[in-house]
Amino acid sequence: MPPIMRIDVPDHNGEVDIKSAYIKGEDSFAIKLSSGFFDNPAMGIPSANGLMILINSHTGEPLAVLADEGRLTDLRTAAAGAVAAKYGSRETSRIAGILGTGAQARLQLYALMLVRPIEHVFVYGRNGEKAVKFKHKMEQKTGLHLTVCETAEQVVRKSDVVVTTTPSKEPLVYGDWMRPGLHITAMGSDAEHKQELDASVIEKADVVVCDVKSQSVRLGELRSSPEQMERAIELGEVTSGKRSFRQSDEEITVCDLTGTGVQDTAIARHVYHQLLDWEGVTDERREV
Amino acid sequence: MPPIMRIDVPDHNGEVDIKSAYIKGEDSFAIKLSSGFFDNPAMGIPSANGLMILINSHTGEPLAVLADEGRLTDLRTAAAGAVAAKYGSRETSRIAGILGTGAQARLQLYALMLVRPIEHVFVYGRNGEKAVKFKHKMEQKTGLHLTVCETAEQVVRKSDVVVTTTPSKEPLVYGDWMRPGLHITAMGSDAEHKQELDASVIEKADVVVCDVKSQSVRLGELRSSPEQMERAIELGEVTSGKRSFRQSDEEITVCDLTGTGVQDTAIARHVYHQLLDWEGVTDERREV
Repeated sequence: MPPIMRIDVPDHNGEVDIKSAYIKGEDSFAIKLSSGFFDNPAMGIPSANGLMILINSHTGEPLAVLADEGRLTDLRTAAAGAVAAKYGSRETSRIAGILGTGAQARLQLYALMLVRPIEHVFVYGRNGEKAVKFKHKMEQKTGLHLTVCETAEQVVRKSDVVVTTTPSKEPLVYGDWMRPGLHITAMGSDAEHKQELDASVIEKADVVVCDVKSQSVRLGELRSSPEQMERAIELGEVTSGKRSFRQSDEEITVCDLTGTGVQDTAIARHVYHQLLDWEGVTDERREV
Repeated sequence: MPPIMRIDVPDHNGEVDIKSAYIKGEDSFAIKLSSGFFDNPAMGIPSANGLMILINSHTGEPLAVLADEGRLTDLRTAAAGAVAAKYGSRETSRIAGILGTGAQARLQLYALMLVRPIEHVFVYGRNGEKAVKFKHKMEQKTGLHLTVCETAEQVVRKSDVVVTTTPSKEPLVYGDWMRPGLHITAMGSDAEHKQELDASVIEKADVVVCDVKSQSVRLGELRSSPEQMERAIELGEVTSGKRSFRQSDEEITVCDLTGTGVQDTAIARHVYHQLLDWEGVTDERREV
């Protein structure tokens, strides 16, 4: 998995990131372009866009261009959140806290509901009106009860599992607010100028997990506390059974997600094979 | 222009390079994937493949996927060779020397003929049979006379302008062979393990030009003589009139090309606008 490539377009307040990962033994891998052009909303179009290209691992031939406009990134990011919660949060977590009210706030809540018996949701967003809309929409969609909070602190103090989904440039969550048993997944920060967790959160946590440590220390929450890198565990070490994440109900656990090319390759392959299924492509033709 | 991103697929002797460049003021830019899978020829398919994606500079939206299988890279690489020869070789250059007999050997000769009054061509390739085929094909295509040489040295000693187009890992050309007035364009080396020119070539040359100095010293011919980097000129400085390349008929000149994302953006934009012309898309609809 090579480092992320980034093309800056400062004239238009935009950037394109390129991620990729070859997974040993798999017959294809993805190269993903994801763009963020932050003047777009003023023109009535979403800031995020992107596409994935699936490459034949044996020959280098392009197999498919998935013009998903960033949808697959949204889904795999939410899926990574579910994996983090599955290994990091208490199994009995019933109260979810969501910071932020955008697309990831929605998707992370759906993902969380797949792995934990969520009954109630506390949500906080800078824009109170959007938070109320989020409450109504998600109550309708999920059947859960949502409560809009006045502060991030209220959300964190009341929840079993918190997901931070904002593009914040300053800490939103502080270590003092955390009680035993809490799990936090921070998926918002993926660039040098972003930060959701105060350094005290990482310091006070009993277990710190990242999707990719080298990325987290550069683009994620470990940037504020690089001295914690040594004890941090990678999520892949957890899912492959090499290391443990939560080991008791009393621990405070944190997982920082910056997004990985491996996740892109996994979802692109999954979708590509689903498309082949729908089109009735036989296994024979599918072989490379 | 960010550094080249490279994904290695060692299990299948392959790699994918990604290049890009945003050109200030242009309304689109390209992201290019180019692959080299070196076990492909044994399976009867070309080792090179690739595609280009044109991105809207204002919004980040993908405008086009040009599934050119590497053809546009071939053409822009040859075009860069023509530019190098136009500024580096003597205007009266009539004798071309080509090292290598592959696709770039053909295209570089065509490109050279666009800028210099070539009358005769000397060619050398490791595989004598392929060299003979190259001679026959190119005599038919160009109407020129070609002579197959036994050694690279014969080619270099007899030519006014030499283009090296091989994937050689060891020097093919030595400084002792060069006579006053010679121009050499080296376009083969684009990776850490490749080298076509002995360090003595760079040292003895009166003028050394690179497409991108920082790439040449890492992936190209300056790798063998990094101490020459300071005096090296970039081709863009020449074409924009800031610096001179050849200043007299007696100088020995060398240009090392490693390939740039700017070239990819230029040819992708050119082809895209040609496609819009062919489809009769009006200027209005074309605006972003």
